[in-house]
Amino acid sequence: MSELFTVLPPGEAFTALARACSPPERAEIVPLAAALGRVLAEDVVARETLPGFARATMDGYAVRAADTHGASEQSPAYLRVVGDVPTGVVPLLAVGVREAVRTHTGAMIPPGADAVVMVEDTNLHPSAGSGQAEEVEVLAASPPGDNVLAVGEDVRAGAVAVPAGRRLGAAALGGLAALGVTRVAVRARPRVAILSTGDEVVAADAVPGPAQVRDVNATTVAAVVREAGGEPVPCGIAPDDAAALERALRAAMDGADAVVLSAGSSVSVRDLTAGVVARLGAPGVLVHGIAIKPGKPTVLAVCDGTPVVGLPGNPASALVVAWRIVRPLVRLLGGETAGELGVADDLETTAVLGVPVPSRPGREDYVPCTLARDENGELRATPVFGASNLIFTLIRADGLIAVPLDRSGLSAGERVRVIVP
Amino acid sequence: MSELFTVLPPGEAFTALARACSPPERAEIVPLAAALGRVLAEDVVARETLPGFARATMDGYAVRAADTHGASEQSPAYLRVVGDVPTGVVPLLAVGVREAVRTHTGAMIPPGADAVVMVEDTNLHPSAGSGQAEEVEVLAASPPGDNVLAVGEDVRAGAVAVPAGRRLGAAALGGLAALGVTRVAVRARPRVAILSTGDEVVAADAVPGPAQVRDVNATTVAAVVREAGGEPVPCGIAPDDAAALERALRAAMDGADAVVLSAGSSVSVRDLTAGVVARLGAPGVLVHGIAIKPGKPTVLAVCDGTPVVGLPGNPASALVVAWRIVRPLVRLLGGETAGELGVADDLETTAVLGVPVPSRPGREDYVPCTLARDENGELRATPVFGASNLIFTLIRADGLIAVPLDRSGLSAGERVRVIVP
Repeated sequence: MSELFTVLPPGEAFTALARACSPPERAEIVPLAAALGRVLAEDVVARETLPGFARATMDGYAVRAADTHGASEQSPAYLRVVGDVPTGVVPLLAVGVREAVRTHTGAMIPPGADAVVMVEDTNLHPSAGSGQAEEVEVLAASPPGDNVLAVGEDVRAGAVAVPAGRRLGAAALGGLAALGVTRVAVRARPRVAILSTGDEVVAADAVPGPAQVRDVNATTVAAVVREAGGEPVPCGIAPDDAAALERALRAAMDGADAVVLSAGSSVSVRDLTAGVVARLGAPGVLVHGIAIKPGKPTVLAVCDGTPVVGLPGNPASALVVAWRIVRPLVRLLGGETAGELGVADDLETTAVLGVPVPSRPGREDYVPCTLARDENGELRATPVFGASNLIFTLIRADGLIAVPLDRSGLSAGERVRVIVP
Repeated sequence: MSELFTVLPPGEAFTALARACSPPERAEIVPLAAALGRVLAEDVVARETLPGFARATMDGYAVRAADTHGASEQSPAYLRVVGDVPTGVVPLLAVGVREAVRTHTGAMIPPGADAVVMVEDTNLHPSAGSGQAEEVEVLAASPPGDNVLAVGEDVRAGAVAVPAGRRLGAAALGGLAALGVTRVAVRARPRVAILSTGDEVVAADAVPGPAQVRDVNATTVAAVVREAGGEPVPCGIAPDDAAALERALRAAMDGADAVVLSAGSSVSVRDLTAGVVARLGAPGVLVHGIAIKPGKPTVLAVCDGTPVVGLPGNPASALVVAWRIVRPLVRLLGGETAGELGVADDLETTAVLGVPVPSRPGREDYVPCTLARDENGELRATPVFGASNLIFTLIRADGLIAVPLDRSGLSAGERVRVIVP
């Protein structure tokens, strides 16, 4: 039995994998309503300037700012109200000297006006008689541009409105709608083949015989892949036999952008898996073992351009590594450009630790925890000790405390990173 | 023009809304592969105990723990190796006194054995001759249960495996697969009718005339609804006319679990909207204005059991209120049980603020910010000041700093809550 792991820290392991593969270039055109969560394939350049016309941001009076200069409650300015411009209507009149036009939030600013006096800063004096205009008393000065949304303040024609590589959320979709972009080119979802292995493993819908267990990893890995924007391709269960495993892996690789297999965790099965993966193509196995708990017996490979992740067989270990490695891999293959936050960060929060958590330096530990808010609204994490290798421990937990590689443990009262899947 | 707002803090406003409506009871049966992100309609009770048999968690030797009592490198115990039990196979032999059976991670523990000695703590001595058994030298004592996963350690038959109201993620789906539960009853997605209003508003795929703008809110609200697990039902654009708006709202309510409309933000339009909503059913308008910036002119109502949210017309304001109010409403209507974290918390992280942020007590402020990690891996938030009412400001931001209701501003160096949509 060989135990010759090339154990790398998870960050370095992922980097080694990411460097050796590249995202597929496939794209497709989808309507905006189907683009939520998809990754933009090319920059969307604004074809128009928004807003395209100056708009009032408050109810009130469109005026020439100069006419309100020095106005105050003690010394109001008096302007003649020459009309009313509702929203959606092009003003047919202009605002002349000492004139005002009644305006509404969102309405076009009439020619001549360069500011809006809020209705709260005015008193309206009714017309003194027929043919006589109303007069508005202005109680505060409005500088030029006051309560006016200027042309181009939101976006200018020719600017990149939403950049390629952006995962489209509500705000970006709204911006595209504002520009009239109702169909967008998005990256194809990366196809991730999922293969389970193990002589003792049967499908989730089968009745296990004695000494057998149902396949959990196919389900959890598919969920992680889907949440990361990928398309899981279920490839069933292969036995612990080199020839059969190689056939199953080659079939899984066909048309896939990545392969995730979960193997048994016994040393002989791990060696078998690594040996078969090594034969699938160059450069082959890059990482054999990562410094993570749970999840150390992980194999990372790239075979003829296709990344292959070999997860440990234990369901809880496999899931932790799926979050730590498979998730960012799928996002990378999906063409998502790592922002400042890094690609996996939407899973993370921080919390204050209630009790110390022991660990070993040189290894990232993921410790299941419950989370609760204290009386100050502060999140507090309480580790669920023992049995961290059980899938139901993960179900009962609210998150996983991440103990950094360089720490020999975390102290009570410390603020810690928590993965909240 | 009335400005008689009943302005409530956002938390109280949401509570008032939540109390007056109840989630629809509709459920549907879906296969596990389609259940990701859905909310479990009823408790899933384990029909079997997992693991159903004691399993080795390490490669090594299944032994009677008592036979290793006191064993050490100086004073090893010597056991006779009587066989090998691969994974997936029912052992046909038992472990007798001073006997050991070679075992593998995941394999069934043979009768008689109650512990597994790790292979790393042993030396194997080959058979001395034909008919003679191999002998294993045990260099460390194994207490009973050592490296053994006991029957029922993961979950016991009759226990609630996953509770009703749980939004199903990777771990919960994995647990269900482990139990052979491959179809589950989930809550129907709440149907949320989305109506935009405004004489100046045209559809996103239309060419706006002068003084007109494209509808942004229909797109952003649909995205928020979908991300919260709801089914958006687009209902188009209604004009600023009481009779037409009432017709459109009644049509939108038909078959909907909630209605979200976005109205113009001018006072007259807000009054028109509130007046029409008040006529749709009892109890009617509950909240007219919430203490939030941006987003104050929000109307919350329940009409004959259907919640109605009237968002401000400004797209950025509408989106902030959609995140703050519509998102938890949809999750509530989706049957999701608020965990310890509260329903909206998967959006949240914390960061250290770089510069002070002014605010006004009595109001929740949401300030767009960029986020970056400093050299210590700490998230730092930098506010994007000015123009927070522009949709493209939100696109360029990484998140929104949440300034609590009771604060008159946030200080540089302070840890703050950040909404990361």
